Amino acid sequence: MAVLFKSNSDSAARWAQEIRKLVPDVDFRIWPDYGDPADIKFALVWGMPIGEFHKFPNLRCIASLGAGVDHIFRDPDLPEGVAITRLVDPWMAEAMSEYVLLQVLRFHRQGDTYARFQAEKHWETLPFPDTAQRRVGILGLGVLGEDAAVKLARHGFPTAGWSRRAKQIDGVECFHGAEGLKPFLNRTDILCCLLPLTPETEDIIDAKLLTELPKGAYIVNSARGRHVVDEDLIAAMDAGHIAGAALDVFRQEPLPAEHPYWTHPKVLLTPHAAALTNPRTAGQQVAENIRRVLAGEAPLHQVDRAAGY
Amino acid sequence: MAVLFKSNSDSAARWAQEIRKLVPDVDFRIWPDYGDPADIKFALVWGMPIGEFHKFPNLRCIASLGAGVDHIFRDPDLPEGVAITRLVDPWMAEAMSEYVLLQVLRFHRQGDTYARFQAEKHWETLPFPDTAQRRVGILGLGVLGEDAAVKLARHGFPTAGWSRRAKQIDGVECFHGAEGLKPFLNRTDILCCLLPLTPETEDIIDAKLLTELPKGAYIVNSARGRHVVDEDLIAAMDAGHIAGAALDVFRQEPLPAEHPYWTHPKVLLTPHAAALTNPRTAGQQVAENIRRVLAGEAPLHQVDRAAGY
Repeated sequence: MAVLFKSNSDSAARWAQEIRKLVPDVDFRIWPDYGDPADIKFALVWGMPIGEFHKFPNLRCIASLGAGVDHIFRDPDLPEGVAITRLVDPWMAEAMSEYVLLQVLRFHRQGDTYARFQAEKHWETLPFPDTAQRRVGILGLGVLGEDAAVKLARHGFPTAGWSRRAKQIDGVECFHGAEGLKPFLNRTDILCCLLPLTPETEDIIDAKLLTELPKGAYIVNSARGRHVVDEDLIAAMDAGHIAGAALDVFRQEPLPAEHPYWTHPKVLLTPHAAALTNPRTAGQQVAENIRRVLAGEAPLHQVDRAAGY
Repeated sequence: MAVLFKSNSDSAARWAQEIRKLVPDVDFRIWPDYGDPADIKFALVWGMPIGEFHKFPNLRCIASLGAGVDHIFRDPDLPEGVAITRLVDPWMAEAMSEYVLLQVLRFHRQGDTYARFQAEKHWETLPFPDTAQRRVGILGLGVLGEDAAVKLARHGFPTAGWSRRAKQIDGVECFHGAEGLKPFLNRTDILCCLLPLTPETEDIIDAKLLTELPKGAYIVNSARGRHVVDEDLIAAMDAGHIAGAALDVFRQEPLPAEHPYWTHPKVLLTPHAAALTNPRTAGQQVAENIRRVLAGEAPLHQVDRAAGY
């Protein structure tokens, strides 16, 4: 029984090396040279073409190479009875929180304005921002959202989080559900999106949501491009309601050259670089799930197929 | 007996309000309307003209409005027997550490390169940086340097510090003295200067020091402009040895329009905005020293006149 690897961004060589180190007898096959489809019991994937999973009659587990599983659920014909798992890589949470902290600090310390001043050779010290007055809010309190919220609160920002179901996190004001969204947004100066992408959260950052933020608020999105209605965000920035956005993810990646984000003066963009899967730290969890599945046991970190995450 | 206030950057109105709140019977006089010089016992200053302190025969204490006292020691004829104090404002240390953390994170996460990519509409995800591999070094382990070092270490950077005399700080590798400087520099990928400005530390960041840093190192200077030999730093950046510099302080402020830093592609500059004195948080300490001096007691946070800090 074999493991299939398919990704358009992760290194097959590095994953093969890491998994072979941890599961020495593994039969590791790399797309598209996977041989007999009936051999494949475990698929380690990022960006599998739609409809392909059905080709593997003995598939028992589809393991995402990232924290998100939306790229798997794009396939409307996922085979029944196959476990779907996500990566819970502590290193990835650290990298993501680091990215969010950087972008929050940059907006908080007026880095966007000072960059403009430098371009204009303009020397002016702005009124000094007070960390204890800058309210940060995290959309989504999963593994990544909770880690970021705790670290932002520890830095000294008054920090809140919003999630679908009620949560409790020390030092973080927690809001939840449809009725919790408005009060959460009303008190948030810098909004960071770390939601999973599901039919419920797609397009969540739209004109209506942006209106609920105080004037001058900032957006940080390092979750998925489809969380944001691009035209609504651009309109809110152009109207002066939203002061700026740091965006790492986009509806289409690479971002097309004609997209207005590239040159928008209020957008700082990074090319899906906030956090990535590190075979060195994530390999252990994948190896453990390969062992479990080959032994007929249930894998860890399964996602809820009904909820989509 | 009266208090003299003189500053070219701090707000006289805000300081007067804060000090009057804490020392209700204070006789607070604002430069140049200080009346009879013989009344002045306490001077709260930033940027007093050279030679002026001698005009106050009953002066007992010169209190700096900042953490640095180099602006006082510029005066070669400081009256003898007058205590000189610096501000130790916990809020200022927090603001300074926040600035240093922001600039270190930005270089660590390749923010300078990604900004260039955005300007060029170039989509490319760079090899991912590992926090545990990025060695940060702090020049100066006073109140500000120690606070920054502890916070950078807590974030996960391997952090070292260098100071004139030996120090011990949990989680921070401490180097000291002339012989400690080279090994400290050799292991430092991002060098942050938080030294006091003294004859010993002036021009410390010169060609010789920069050569000891590994190729591709970054500089963050939020101490004083005169710590850096500008021509040497620019030459090291142009030669590709130093990858970039975040500079908040300059030999001349405002930075003259013709200075090459304004347009240098490897320089991010801010207009002396890293940390400033906040009367709300620093007023308590100044008020306490006014009470002490008017009561004939020794003020707190005196500097060592021989060492210059």
